[in-house]
Amino acid sequence: MNAQTPYKLKSYICGEWKAGTRDGVELLDAGTGAVVATIDASGLDMGEALDFGRRSGSALRAMTFHERAEMLKALAKALNEHKAEFHALSLATGATPRDGMVDIEGGLATLFSYSGMGRRELPNTRTLVEGDLLPLSKDGSFSAQHILTPLQGVAVHINAFNFPCWGMLEKLAPTLLAGVPAVIKPASQTAYLTELMVRRMIDSGILPDGALQLISGSVGDLLDHVTGQDVVTFTGSANTGRMLRVHPRIIAESTRFTMEADSLNASVLGPDAVAGTPEFDLFIKEIAREMTVKAGQKCTAIRRVMAPRAQVQSVIEALGAQLAKMGVGLPGDEGTRMGALASLAQRTEVRDRIRDLSVDAEIAIGDPDAVTVVSGDPDAGAFLNPVVMYCDNPSAAKAVHDVEAFGPVSTVMPYDDLDEAVALTHRGKGSLTASVFTNDPAVAEAAVIGMAPYHGRILLGNRVSAKTSTGHGAPLPNLVHGGPGRAGGGEEMGGVRGVKHFMQRTAVQGAPAMLSAVTGRWIDGAPTRDDTHPFRKSLADLRIGDQLVTEKRQITLADVEHFADFTGDTFYAHMNEEAAKANPFFDGRVAHGYLIVSFAAGLFVQPDPGPVLANYGVDNLRFLTPVYPGDTLGVRLTCKEINPRTNADHGEVRWDCQVTNQAGEVVAQYDVLTMVAKIWPD
Amino acid sequence: MNAQTPYKLKSYICGEWKAGTRDGVELLDAGTGAVVATIDASGLDMGEALDFGRRSGSALRAMTFHERAEMLKALAKALNEHKAEFHALSLATGATPRDGMVDIEGGLATLFSYSGMGRRELPNTRTLVEGDLLPLSKDGSFSAQHILTPLQGVAVHINAFNFPCWGMLEKLAPTLLAGVPAVIKPASQTAYLTELMVRRMIDSGILPDGALQLISGSVGDLLDHVTGQDVVTFTGSANTGRMLRVHPRIIAESTRFTMEADSLNASVLGPDAVAGTPEFDLFIKEIAREMTVKAGQKCTAIRRVMAPRAQVQSVIEALGAQLAKMGVGLPGDEGTRMGALASLAQRTEVRDRIRDLSVDAEIAIGDPDAVTVVSGDPDAGAFLNPVVMYCDNPSAAKAVHDVEAFGPVSTVMPYDDLDEAVALTHRGKGSLTASVFTNDPAVAEAAVIGMAPYHGRILLGNRVSAKTSTGHGAPLPNLVHGGPGRAGGGEEMGGVRGVKHFMQRTAVQGAPAMLSAVTGRWIDGAPTRDDTHPFRKSLADLRIGDQLVTEKRQITLADVEHFADFTGDTFYAHMNEEAAKANPFFDGRVAHGYLIVSFAAGLFVQPDPGPVLANYGVDNLRFLTPVYPGDTLGVRLTCKEINPRTNADHGEVRWDCQVTNQAGEVVAQYDVLTMVAKIWPD
Repeated sequence: MNAQTPYKLKSYICGEWKAGTRDGVELLDAGTGAVVATIDASGLDMGEALDFGRRSGSALRAMTFHERAEMLKALAKALNEHKAEFHALSLATGATPRDGMVDIEGGLATLFSYSGMGRRELPNTRTLVEGDLLPLSKDGSFSAQHILTPLQGVAVHINAFNFPCWGMLEKLAPTLLAGVPAVIKPASQTAYLTELMVRRMIDSGILPDGALQLISGSVGDLLDHVTGQDVVTFTGSANTGRMLRVHPRIIAESTRFTMEADSLNASVLGPDAVAGTPEFDLFIKEIAREMTVKAGQKCTAIRRVMAPRAQVQSVIEALGAQLAKMGVGLPGDEGTRMGALASLAQRTEVRDRIRDLSVDAEIAIGDPDAVTVVSGDPDAGAFLNPVVMYCDNPSAAKAVHDVEAFGPVSTVMPYDDLDEAVALTHRGKGSLTASVFTNDPAVAEAAVIGMAPYHGRILLGNRVSAKTSTGHGAPLPNLVHGGPGRAGGGEEMGGVRGVKHFMQRTAVQGAPAMLSAVTGRWIDGAPTRDDTHPFRKSLADLRIGDQLVTEKRQITLADVEHFADFTGDTFYAHMNEEAAKANPFFDGRVAHGYLIVSFAAGLFVQPDPGPVLANYGVDNLRFLTPVYPGDTLGVRLTCKEINPRTNADHGEVRWDCQVTNQAGEVVAQYDVLTMVAKIWPD
Repeated sequence: MNAQTPYKLKSYICGEWKAGTRDGVELLDAGTGAVVATIDASGLDMGEALDFGRRSGSALRAMTFHERAEMLKALAKALNEHKAEFHALSLATGATPRDGMVDIEGGLATLFSYSGMGRRELPNTRTLVEGDLLPLSKDGSFSAQHILTPLQGVAVHINAFNFPCWGMLEKLAPTLLAGVPAVIKPASQTAYLTELMVRRMIDSGILPDGALQLISGSVGDLLDHVTGQDVVTFTGSANTGRMLRVHPRIIAESTRFTMEADSLNASVLGPDAVAGTPEFDLFIKEIAREMTVKAGQKCTAIRRVMAPRAQVQSVIEALGAQLAKMGVGLPGDEGTRMGALASLAQRTEVRDRIRDLSVDAEIAIGDPDAVTVVSGDPDAGAFLNPVVMYCDNPSAAKAVHDVEAFGPVSTVMPYDDLDEAVALTHRGKGSLTASVFTNDPAVAEAAVIGMAPYHGRILLGNRVSAKTSTGHGAPLPNLVHGGPGRAGGGEEMGGVRGVKHFMQRTAVQGAPAMLSAVTGRWIDGAPTRDDTHPFRKSLADLRIGDQLVTEKRQITLADVEHFADFTGDTFYAHMNEEAAKANPFFDGRVAHGYLIVSFAAGLFVQPDPGPVLANYGVDNLRFLTPVYPGDTLGVRLTCKEINPRTNADHGEVRWDCQVTNQAGEVVAQYDVLTMVAKIWPD
């Protein structure tokens, strides 16, 4: 199959590739106008598809986070083998190879990234425990813990035409990692590329049946079948999003609905970044790049260019020079720097919006009606050269803050002081992203704090990050993507946050033994076992609640002085009775905190070679009661969490370590982190 | 003013108490039928009220989290002075003094609780930094940080009639702590009590102008004026909530909308908790309590009672005995154990719903049409005795899972195994809360994991927590309140999570100096200053980025052996060359982690009496590279965060501590936590 052979796209639902019952709509190559494929999903049973997905959820939920993360990695590797095929077909969408990288390699990178986060930041369990234990009683008999469990529905992802691969994968990765099956509904215009990638995923056999379904064509009555356990996400125009959001079934079931809409993203040139500074040059390059990557068809593209009034002329001139280098033509052609819009209809749409913008702004660079190409047929292909508008009085203007031309179009507008620039960014009524180019930290602070309530992401550009910046327009897997208001009010990705969007948060309250059973984490007051020293147990034997209560040890003044002498830590609170007494926290000389934890380790370690391999860290160490010379310490060490690694012979074990004094007061509380072998002797 | 003097409720908008232009609707005493007040908000300019609130936001945003937390505490203390007055008026709502405690004391406790969380869990800043720094480049020149800033709109809280005080305060506390002004719109039926409490808050003069507004009456066209920076929350019936959720302006602006609706909450008796066990008795008491507190008018009340089939008869008998003790009558009467419903209309509504339930269930206890009171007039007051229904085949039934009688009504239903009980809880299509009474941790685990995706909160009841449990029906400030699906899909409170609902999360990307300026937190690569030892600086002089680079110190084998001998930590990896080598992490004997941090402290402390008062803890300590005898260590200590306390002469200072070896490899990385005086010498 290739872009030259039209074929009928199929849907993959209920475990089968199915064609719609009608002939379908022709999808044309954006650069040549040739028919690439036809699309239709008529007659498919959408309710059945959702049910099939829901039933399959149990297979995903039976996997741990690490197993799901490994699955994502395998999927990314499998797709990686087919990159050439994807790139070849991607050209038909109007995307240059550089654009295709953002979509295809960017999508795979997102899969890899979520796989890594799953293994590093999530436990190797099925339930996610969130936050600390919350005591609800003085005696410890009643507490609470928040947990997250996978929703028992499906995630329906309704995607935009501009990123047929990344748009699918950035949502699929957190969905599958959460343990929730997905139904993908790509925008028709470029659905052939999504369909091809889904085929390769299904062919790989990596996913459980039903974990991934595809609808090539209209969703029909699908939304009539969603429930409160399903999630619907939408990426695309604000108008369509609003229509979906009020779907009676979504409202009746309180179905989670996440929207990510195009927005009037701004880029601000700092007052300090005058022509001739590195920041000025970075600003110009960034705008030109955002206008031309994907021919400006990005929901994060820079639509509003804000510069100090004195810099506006320089900005327009520099932009003109930069854009003049961007030859427009067939996406696969070597001389092409910018490809085609997705379709001729899209070009008409962009020209109409430029007319709307003309109420407030004049054209400073380019001519939307005169197409100049380096290759291809300017009438058959959806080509459009970049257009820069200029709006002289943006505070009084309306269209430039409301109307989005979804193509290579930006409007330059002057500002008189930074407050005005911040206020102008607000006029977009909520945006996905913004950028500020400045080398002045004070400008960065004022601009970001002022703009943040209206933005999901803000990029600060300066000379230091010139080479390493990922750019204004690039959403990243570990950063939130989405914005308030006009941008849809949604949040996607953002690392593990994105996984939680497909899970239900539940506060669980109860006695320690009960909470411990639910969370798989030992809690003070839950049952313990003290049969043998827990350092003698490999993961095969070790269980949460395994506990050691140590012998006692007295700390003498000689110990404190010796420790000070040995380590060099002669801080006055340990060495000077008078100064220590003057301190609001102490009644006299106190033992070093590091001495307490060192003696504690001396009390709890078991010295013989054994399954405990290393102490790799300590978390949340708090010194709660001063230790005075003469005090006697004891340690209670309890196995709190066990996290076997999927791909190693060991795993992480977290120990609750509590050091108490002769009065039973807790003097230090912390988690000791160790690596423990799965089997010993091995 | 008291419950016997009808008066016209006013709204507090734009800084003034204003009456509506019409006569208004009469609000009747629930127990006596006497007129308490009239309510009307006609003719008030709601758009202007929102604008006034928004303008006032800057005063709240200028305060730090700790200042706002102090404000909440002052507010709670001020209201505490007027408790008697609130309780007196509360009787008119049908609430007994015990019910009034839940509403009035419960509301004040929520204010106090958020005040405490604000001071303990939030920094003393205006911007909230969330999560770790996210490196986006190998050389550290480009990273990201998520921040949260207050929305620049207002929060409109539309509340239910059942908790006129708590319902307002549980939303107001996180709103104000976030730095966002609020507009309260109580349900009319009990608005007189909300109005009184708002009067006392306004009279206290504690809140900035415009931080709190009240609408007594209909919101009119208020929602036509909301924006994407505003938040609308709704607590009440699912039908009204759905209507508000699709308001064209809320949809057009993607205004955040949180809904908390009544739901068909279940309580499950575990298979182990047969008659005669403490859990059985706790279960019965809890159901009777939930049916009668607030006369069952609680969105968290137990509507569905699930018991093993063999226990059903015992459950009904025990419930009957327990409910027989609950005398129904005038709320202020000493013999009364259960008060009145909110209104006669509400009683009619409950009776209608009981008829709806009768399709699937029969009445086992009580008679909705025959009212027996211990005091009061059964016709003039909205009295209703508890009604227990029984549904023999709940898996086949529909109404018992769909129809909520918002009063003292619950339906008992049998289950045959725990899986069926879990499946039955799902039939409620999403609930605020559920409870499980069991003393078997395996039952607790299976039930909670099975039920969690459909619930916002699950309480486990057993003998251990019998005395300390806060109960099935009580939302708590530090736990999430809200549930999926039928329960509205929202989340309120949940500790600091609830504060974030009124803030915008923004990912900020840039070079270290820029991010550091925005977050107020030193980041590796941001500017540093090394003029004097930072331990010599009080908070008056200390700045983030103040840094000490220490001398070097070699760790010898003798040091390791001496430390082992001194502390008793003779773990094999430090003492046994062969065993250490066999370990997958080490090439031979290594230094103790605790020795590394002890020597590090010896290198970085400054011994003289000074402004650094104590090291109260260590966070996120990771040993990243093994340290072998002969290695030479150096420390870089940098002031990372400064958090002056509002009410003390000192504050917390967090230091970035990095220990490196002779090759420049980081061997340990951690945060050192200290208390530092504001002024030195003082």
